[in-house]
Order: sequence, then structure tokens, then C-alpha cells
Amino acid sequence: MQFEFDQATALVQREAGQYDADIHPGWDINGNANGGYLLALAGKAMRDLSGRPDPISVTAHYLAPGPAGPITVSADTIKSGRQLVTMSGSIQRGDRQLLRVIGSFGDIAASSGGFSYNTMAPPDLPPIEQCTKHVAQREGTVIGLAERINVFFRPEHAPFRFEPRPGVALIEGWAAFADGRPFDTLSLLLVVDALPPPVFNIDIPTGWVPTIELTAHIRGIPAPGPLRCRFHTEIVQNGFMQEDGEVWDSAGQLVAQSRQLALVPRG
Amino acid sequence: MQFEFDQATALVQREAGQYDADIHPGWDINGNANGGYLLALAGKAMRDLSGRPDPISVTAHYLAPGPAGPITVSADTIKSGRQLVTMSGSIQRGDRQLLRVIGSFGDIAASSGGFSYNTMAPPDLPPIEQCTKHVAQREGTVIGLAERINVFFRPEHAPFRFEPRPGVALIEGWAAFADGRPFDTLSLLLVVDALPPPVFNIDIPTGWVPTIELTAHIRGIPAPGPLRCRFHTEIVQNGFMQEDGEVWDSAGQLVAQSRQLALVPRG
Repeated sequence: MQFEFDQATALVQREAGQYDADIHPGWDINGNANGGYLLALAGKAMRDLSGRPDPISVTAHYLAPGPAGPITVSADTIKSGRQLVTMSGSIQRGDRQLLRVIGSFGDIAASSGGFSYNTMAPPDLPPIEQCTKHVAQREGTVIGLAERINVFFRPEHAPFRFEPRPGVALIEGWAAFADGRPFDTLSLLLVVDALPPPVFNIDIPTGWVPTIELTAHIRGIPAPGPLRCRFHTEIVQNGFMQEDGEVWDSAGQLVAQSRQLALVPRG
Repeated sequence: MQFEFDQATALVQREAGQYDADIHPGWDINGNANGGYLLALAGKAMRDLSGRPDPISVTAHYLAPGPAGPITVSADTIKSGRQLVTMSGSIQRGDRQLLRVIGSFGDIAASSGGFSYNTMAPPDLPPIEQCTKHVAQREGTVIGLAERINVFFRPEHAPFRFEPRPGVALIEGWAAFADGRPFDTLSLLLVVDALPPPVFNIDIPTGWVPTIELTAHIRGIPAPGPLRCRFHTEIVQNGFMQEDGEVWDSAGQLVAQSRQLALVPRG
């Protein structure tokens, strides 16, 4: 049996570094593929060609929306070093580029241990059964992704639940694949973009904040179990916003950090 | 009269998107160019070719150290959109690639205003004359950069000043060009890597934390005057560390946010 995520990121090699693939339906918001899913698709091709097991730092610039359908995924080696392999990647549909990526890949297990320092803590979430499940349909928005990855919000952070809105651009919650697939370092590239924008909990005069750029740092190999996530925006100004994310595993280890810059269209 | 930064980032176009340039001496740590200086060199070529005045989100992967000497800087347009132009860039010396960059460029003045939200505040620094000036020489380390950009640390954050070390990976301070050059959005790419690593204020068993990847978000056009900076590391684990930076102008506006991932060599 194959899990949904692995089906949806299947790559068929055409030549070295060139893969045929499909943006699968159901990993979308209103028909366009989620940015984390696209990042995982490109990241998989880059990782496989790098010969290293883990994305370490991966940055994508989003160039065009990606409805379901065939794509070409490309990967190329920029530099093969002892500890890290730096790769470029892209997703194309015909002559239209959807995504352009740069990333360094490595082996987290091989560098584990050593000096550690930590001032962060995972969110102290209520048990899943006391959280508010993310729903796939809301006021004309169809969130296919919410049926692939289950998100359970801390009740007071659940977006669109409160009027007036909570006033703080913060969403914490649990995340788990709907079909029970365990998380690995590749699938964390999906998780860092799997929750709704936390600015939906403030009075932002738009329902659409398209990602310009997303960088994910993969910091650990996730232990089995659901992930604890915190996403937050500190500053919206001059038509742009940042969104930061932290993802912890069931052992309390930070496994991913992310930051994206998004456009804030005029309301 | 030309300022040092403009001299040190001078580009001579050889053909479209290909520039001859030099890594100038004196923008280094122990003979290797500072990462922010290299980012500004590549960012300038990318910005100029993009036709837009401001870097918006720029990510560099560092591939090899850059001692002073001739280089080729390349820039290429990935996508020219209405609001943003997405570019790639690189710095090469002979057949060796030093830096690979992706970035989106735009016009911050044109998108200024609109909805704003801010939970961050600039560091409440003592006046410059009560701060501790960064010195260019210390125990066998020669920091040429410290003579190009003056950094004045909050006294209790000044690295290497206290034994035992303060124990918190945080450095706040002022930054200003030594020759009085005003800051613009391009030079913020230098500033986001111009302070010493804040992990030098904790008992990290290494004096060298090479940057793998650095992403800068330019969030505003700096008002005249020195910049207030805060750099901090939250988590060192599995042989890697993150370092975040925030840079504010004299009007209290956040003008840059940065995050880098760096290697933590075994002590």
C-alpha cells in the first residue's frame, strides 16, 4: 500500500535530473496546489539527485499557480561538498515555470548530537480531541489539502471561528497525515505551509496572501506521531508580510523552522 | 566622491547579465569576504538587471570562501511580473562558484502604506557613545569589515568581553558606515550579516560558524541615520544553528529581517 503523499509526489525519470510528474488534485486551495506540496515535489527530485537523505535548507520562489495536471520537475547539482550538496530545482508546465528552488541537502542523522542550545519550546497544545478540526469547505473556499493533512487547531486560534477576530496573527495546532503516513524530513516541506495564514486571525482586509518566497530549515528527523505546529506573523507593512513557522515532533524536538514572505493585496 | 561600499560593489558589464568585479580587500574576516558583502555584490547585479529599485527577498547559498580578487558576477531573469521580478545570480572565480542566489526584486515605495500590523519593537539601545565599539583585531582574528561598517554593541552584549560568557545568544547594537554613506535597500544586504554571530555569547565550542544559507527580506526604505540591529540564535542542534536578524531605521521602521542557517563544527 502506498500513502497518498508518496503517490502525489511520484516522479518518473525521463533523463538525469528531469522527471515527469503530476500535480495531483486534492492537495489544493480552490484548485491551486498548496505551496508546501509543490515544494515537496521539487524537493524530492533535488533530494534524490543529491544522493543525500535530508533537505537541510530549501528556498522556493513561487512564480505561477499550479492547478492539477502534468508537470516537469528538474533538478541540478550546483556543488557537491563533503557534508552538503547544493541543488537547484524547478517545476515547469510547458514553457511556464511554476516554481524555482535552491537548497542544500545533507544527512541529519550523521550530524546529530554535539553542542546544543535551545530557547524555544513546543506549543503546549490541548489534546487533539479537544482541538478544532480544520474543515475542507468554508464560504466558497474549498481546501482539498485539509483532507490530506489533518490539522487540529488550538480552539482559540481556529481561524474564522470568532467575530471579532482574535487580533493576534498566531495559529497553533496539531498536524497529521489523514492516511496515517509517518512524517519524514521530506514531508516536513509540506507541513511548513499546511496551516491557514495566521493573519486570518487579525483584521487583514484580504482573504488571499500569495507566497512570494518560502524557506524551510529542516532541523531534525521527526519521531513518530502527530506534529505540533506554531505559525505566526509579526509584521505586515508596505504590502508584504512575513510568516514564521515552527514544527515539533512528539519527542519535543524542533524538526522544522520556516519563514515565508507573502504579498498582501490591497483590500 | 564615492563611498567605500559603492567602490567595493562596482560592476563592469561585459555582456548582458555578466559583470566583471572585484572582491575588495577590507570587507573580510581573516581574509575571506563577509557573506553580506558577497550578497550585496550579487544582489546589485540582480537588482540592476531586474530594473526594479529594491531587493525584496534574496537567498544566497555559500559555496566557497571569497578572498580578495577578481570575480565574475552573473544575473539572469527568471520571471518578470507586474509587481516583482524574480532573478537568479551567482559569483564565480574562474570555474569555481562562490555564491548562488535567488531573489525577487520590486519597488517598496510603490507598495508603501496600506494595512499594517506589528508586534515587534526596535531594541531600546543606549546612545552610541555609551555602547562598545566593535574592534577590528582580537586574538588572531582580523575583522576588516569592522573598519568599513562601525558596529556599537549594547555593552552587556559585546562578544568576548565577559568571562564567563553572558549565556544568551543575543547581540544588539548600532550599525553605520564608517565613511558616513547613507543606507539604501541594497546595503541592507550587507548589514544583515555585519555583526558577529550571537552564539559567541554562549559557550559554543567553536569560533567559526560558516553560513550555509542566508535569506534577507527587505521590508522598508531606511530613513537617514544609524541602524538599530538585533541578532539572535534560538536553537543549535544536530550540527546546525539558525541566526535571525532584525534591522530598524532611525524612524523606528523595520527595514530588514534575516535568517541564516550555519554549520556548527564539532569543537
